[in-house]
Amino acid sequence: MNISVAILGATGYTGAELIRLVESHPHFEVAHLGAHSQSGKRAGEVLPGISGELASTLLAASDAPISDQVQLVFTALPHGAAAESVKNALDSGRKVIDLSADFRHKSHDTYKEAYGVEHPCPELFDEAVYGLTEFSRSDVADARLVANPGCYPTSTLLPLVPLLRNGVLDSEQIIVDSKSGTSGAGRSADRSLLYCEINEGLSAYGLPRHRHAWEMEEWANGFGQQSVSIRFVPHILPMSRGMLSTLHLSGERPETWHKILSQAFAHETFVNILPEGQLPSTQAVKGSNRCDIGVAVIGTKQAVVVSCIDNLLKGASGQALQNANVMFGFEEALGLSTTALWP
Amino acid sequence: MNISVAILGATGYTGAELIRLVESHPHFEVAHLGAHSQSGKRAGEVLPGISGELASTLLAASDAPISDQVQLVFTALPHGAAAESVKNALDSGRKVIDLSADFRHKSHDTYKEAYGVEHPCPELFDEAVYGLTEFSRSDVADARLVANPGCYPTSTLLPLVPLLRNGVLDSEQIIVDSKSGTSGAGRSADRSLLYCEINEGLSAYGLPRHRHAWEMEEWANGFGQQSVSIRFVPHILPMSRGMLSTLHLSGERPETWHKILSQAFAHETFVNILPEGQLPSTQAVKGSNRCDIGVAVIGTKQAVVVSCIDNLLKGASGQALQNANVMFGFEEALGLSTTALWP
Amino acid sequence: MNISVAILGATGYTGAELIRLVESHPHFEVAHLGAHSQSGKRAGEVLPGISGELASTLLAASDAPISDQVQLVFTALPHGAAAESVKNALDSGRKVIDLSADFRHKSHDTYKEAYGVEHPCPELFDEAVYGLTEFSRSDVADARLVANPGCYPTSTLLPLVPLLRNGVLDSEQIIVDSKSGTSGAGRSADRSLLYCEINEGLSAYGLPRHRHAWEMEEWANGFGQQSVSIRFVPHILPMSRGMLSTLHLSGERPETWHKILSQAFAHETFVNILPEGQLPSTQAVKGSNRCDIGVAVIGTKQAVVVSCIDNLLKGASGQALQNANVMFGFEEALGLSTTALWP
Amino acid sequence: MNISVAILGATGYTGAELIRLVESHPHFEVAHLGAHSQSGKRAGEVLPGISGELASTLLAASDAPISDQVQLVFTALPHGAAAESVKNALDSGRKVIDLSADFRHKSHDTYKEAYGVEHPCPELFDEAVYGLTEFSRSDVADARLVANPGCYPTSTLLPLVPLLRNGVLDSEQIIVDSKSGTSGAGRSADRSLLYCEINEGLSAYGLPRHRHAWEMEEWANGFGQQSVSIRFVPHILPMSRGMLSTLHLSGERPETWHKILSQAFAHETFVNILPEGQLPSTQAVKGSNRCDIGVAVIGTKQAVVVSCIDNLLKGASGQALQNANVMFGFEEALGLSTTALWP
Repeated sequence: MNISVAILGATGYTGAELIRLVESHPHFEVAHLGAHSQSGKRAGEVLPGISGELASTLLAASDAPISDQVQLVFTALPHGAAAESVKNALDSGRKVIDLSADFRHKSHDTYKEAYGVEHPCPELFDEAVYGLTEFSRSDVADARLVANPGCYPTSTLLPLVPLLRNGVLDSEQIIVDSKSGTSGAGRSADRSLLYCEINEGLSAYGLPRHRHAWEMEEWANGFGQQSVSIRFVPHILPMSRGMLSTLHLSGERPETWHKILSQAFAHETFVNILPEGQLPSTQAVKGSNRCDIGVAVIGTKQAVVVSCIDNLLKGASGQALQNANVMFGFEEALGLSTTALWP
Repeated sequence: MNISVAILGATGYTGAELIRLVESHPHFEVAHLGAHSQSGKRAGEVLPGISGELASTLLAASDAPISDQVQLVFTALPHGAAAESVKNALDSGRKVIDLSADFRHKSHDTYKEAYGVEHPCPELFDEAVYGLTEFSRSDVADARLVANPGCYPTSTLLPLVPLLRNGVLDSEQIIVDSKSGTSGAGRSADRSLLYCEINEGLSAYGLPRHRHAWEMEEWANGFGQQSVSIRFVPHILPMSRGMLSTLHLSGERPETWHKILSQAFAHETFVNILPEGQLPSTQAVKGSNRCDIGVAVIGTKQAVVVSCIDNLLKGASGQALQNANVMFGFEEALGLSTTALWP
Repeated sequence: MNISVAILGATGYTGAELIRLVESHPHFEVAHLGAHSQSGKRAGEVLPGISGELASTLLAASDAPISDQVQLVFTALPHGAAAESVKNALDSGRKVIDLSADFRHKSHDTYKEAYGVEHPCPELFDEAVYGLTEFSRSDVADARLVANPGCYPTSTLLPLVPLLRNGVLDSEQIIVDSKSGTSGAGRSADRSLLYCEINEGLSAYGLPRHRHAWEMEEWANGFGQQSVSIRFVPHILPMSRGMLSTLHLSGERPETWHKILSQAFAHETFVNILPEGQLPSTQAVKGSNRCDIGVAVIGTKQAVVVSCIDNLLKGASGQALQNANVMFGFEEALGLSTTALWP
Repeated sequence: MNISVAILGATGYTGAELIRLVESHPHFEVAHLGAHSQSGKRAGEVLPGISGELASTLLAASDAPISDQVQLVFTALPHGAAAESVKNALDSGRKVIDLSADFRHKSHDTYKEAYGVEHPCPELFDEAVYGLTEFSRSDVADARLVANPGCYPTSTLLPLVPLLRNGVLDSEQIIVDSKSGTSGAGRSADRSLLYCEINEGLSAYGLPRHRHAWEMEEWANGFGQQSVSIRFVPHILPMSRGMLSTLHLSGERPETWHKILSQAFAHETFVNILPEGQLPSTQAVKGSNRCDIGVAVIGTKQAVVVSCIDNLLKGASGQALQNANVMFGFEEALGLSTTALWP
């Protein structure tokens, strides 16, 4: 028997990716596509990648009723806008996976500092489970509300947490230099995202402190059991998908870090520690839910750790489906690929 | 029970795509990866997109034995080189899907004219089935040897054949202007294929007559029951995947052509006739096995028909798997996506 | 002594390119930058490619006065909007080069058919000189108002006109399949022009009849002294700059066409007929004002002629400067490059 | 009177860029193009961006004589191979600008450590002037042999040196995370540089220690009068041109660094300190000889400094011409653009 699913914010890039994943999943099925500003149109008019019956689905306004059969709601809405939809869905007895930032923080103050606004329903903070699946699997299994991690935090925390847990890092010397494909900036009609403004261009942004820095620090602490300070600089570059984070790290015995990471993820389907001396490429994970990680020791106290994900998969919708699998008791990797669409 | 499969020429782009498709297929499994020039290496050293056990598979030389359990061999080798491997596989009682051009022609003379060499085993020409699945499904089902169509012919013949069958085209006025992503040019270390030589570049090539022109004419005739002359100009452009063919056509009552195509493909999973007035984009089929087709009437006797495929899927490995499904009695669409990896 | 120049519509892609060209020209200098919607900002805030004093120039509103010293006005405004600015500039005694479509047609009816609106000042039609420099040099020299050709017509007419003049073409069998880089679509914040919607995508558009088809036919006739019918299909592809037009032509003795074109342009700086058998690439003309043309005979009555330009140079601002040089008696190639920025 | 110039290694990307620059320079002219492996061909056969007479120039073998009139030789050859050509040119009384790494180091040991080979003519080390023009202008003016800096060192040293000179940096906490367009990897037919292997891909390379790290440290020390340790991680990304270096720095009073840099470069044509709070983009310097630098204070002891250059201009051939201007007493900016080819 299939589980009916609603996707709110269906016409953004993460929404589109959720549709693709849910459609090919053996036990979930798309029952509702919300896209307020496009409501009344057929999904296929706005989402060129789909076809057939799915393309004929009417896009629903945000106040349109959701069928009682829907058991799971994905909210792929902007932060701030997501919270209310999340609350409504929970109130009507459904489970929710929220891809926005609205429930990623435990403290209202941190949320306010990072996002500059009051949160509309902080009472849900306690219940929300931060769904970096590899580190919160059992909590996700029992959750009503999963806060799906941001793309930068996912690519950073996966390699960082095991090193923190092993106590080998200098927690004041963590520098994360991240590079993201343009789909991470969303689908709004913004001149700075035009093809001709991005192509052959590369730039840093979000300084002095990008919102994801708070999220990284909170969960490095939460999962890594160590208070850390992270200097984080994100960049945007001319690719559609892909994220690479370069972690410039200091600490003890970096020659042991490759082994620490290998052991930490030995039984994980989606985290792939490359052989020593090899460094990952975003191309190798495009279209897959994998996170590839490489380690290079560059001194007696220093190493560079590089991680790659597809920002729309392990960095967003793929991890959301991974969490959905856990929440509904399916095999965690169901409907997710470990092989890239390459080239 | 799974069917074991060998892929010869596993480290080119079509070979890599076959691996991806076979790996995620519920009834086929990869049992042998041939890659003569890379033999002895692990697959993952040469193919960055794969991981895990698959990445550990040893690449086999061309004279390495293939397990008796292998029932199906995909040959993704250069034309000329494929023929012998095809013959060997047939002789040892296996079925073969050949992605090269070696068995796409019915006449030895045409082959020689198009490829400039003698064919090593023309005795197999009669047996080979040209596997443009939508037009040769029943023959494929019974075939030992399927010649998988070229990418340009696939994108051209799908819209052309139904119009020819309906007798509405001026068969002397067929102009096909095609544009291909760079993966169509293969993976050899050729300076003209370097990133910096392709990026921001677009050019025509293969004139006065590209090899695929013979294939198009032969099968336009074969499937369309009409002798035709095709003026074909291919171009290469800066994308990895994707092929768009613009057919400049003349004939009778072009206002009926959209309906002719819609009816011809009404029950096809992978051919998608867009609503009147809409034109397809390669982006919308990337990663899918779909062919999207649009029709624009531009005069009382003239129309433009545009078709888009992913050259590595419907134009090569996807169609090969589609044929494999037919040959082994599986549902034709099994393991193939109709939704694009978008964006 | 320098000639002061105003550029209206300075912050679009053609405007930006004009600024670059005028700035490095030995005898022209930028005296006024109009950009109504951005007025009050510094040029450098909107145009990242410039620096220094030029970047500090204030952008002027459309009703801001233009200094009396300005002798030449470039209007790089949308069609319809340009006409009034053109008229004002002429009335105040300046010369004008209009990069819009507003004065490219001789007949008001044709303009209305192509652009769907009444023209605000058709009285200027007679005076305007269509500035395809190679064919209208002497008229441009004497003009007060030059209508700078469109990019598609420029890339098409350069190879077409000499063949028409020689009477070798079948004038009813002209098919032009053009492909344009994305800068040709302008700089407005349109979702369909976002990086992620263009990258890895290719599509045809503008059917059944793109506006430039009227312009091509009018001037094929005007310069070529022969009434022609052109089937024109434009495409947009993932590059910033570059335009390639593939002309599928029929006629008499195509083996003589290479010579006809070579002779026609033997003394032209910016038109480059490639050796027989060679086909041009957009990469080879990027950043230059060149038009590269190749000829491939494909039958006893048929040939393919391919032309490449940088759509922002020979297709727009470069040709505008070429015309400005002619209007003011400077060497025609002054400030224009024949060498590409390659790669 | 023009100065005749030879370019050895003319068919690589830096060689091609030198040709473009020299050709449009008012006082230099191309008299000899060396390209050993392509010798006997016309330049235009190998370099698509040039045309006309220049394209007809015969490419010379490495043992071909160079005309006595040639006063300046640019060597754009691989390290190791350049040294001998440099020596020969000096011996025949010419000035030399060497774009290879062969004369960038003062110590033979450092050279050997970085490049892993014995240097063929270390006796020239003393004479060679490291030509980071902004810091070595007067030495360049008197030099016979200028070692043109590497692209990564140029983008790093320009912002770093003034901060070192002011003593505000913690010299043990310098992390440089650089990203380079693919032209930086050269034009050899290497499968890893194919379009399909680079497009949509991003990766780090060169670890644990890239050769340019030695060069950076040596000249940070040389120009900055302070011994430093630099952790350097380069990346390659899918653009043709462009380099961005992100400097993660620690030290005293970072709020003063913007002013330090602004003052240091107040009178420089090619170094552009962006207004506080603004960060540079590679797109804004493409085709120009500029280095754009932005500063973001991110803590009481920390700042991020980002610099952008076109790796083929300020990072290679543009700086070489800048040095040539200084060596021959021309205005330093002659023939070099401060405006980008944008977009």
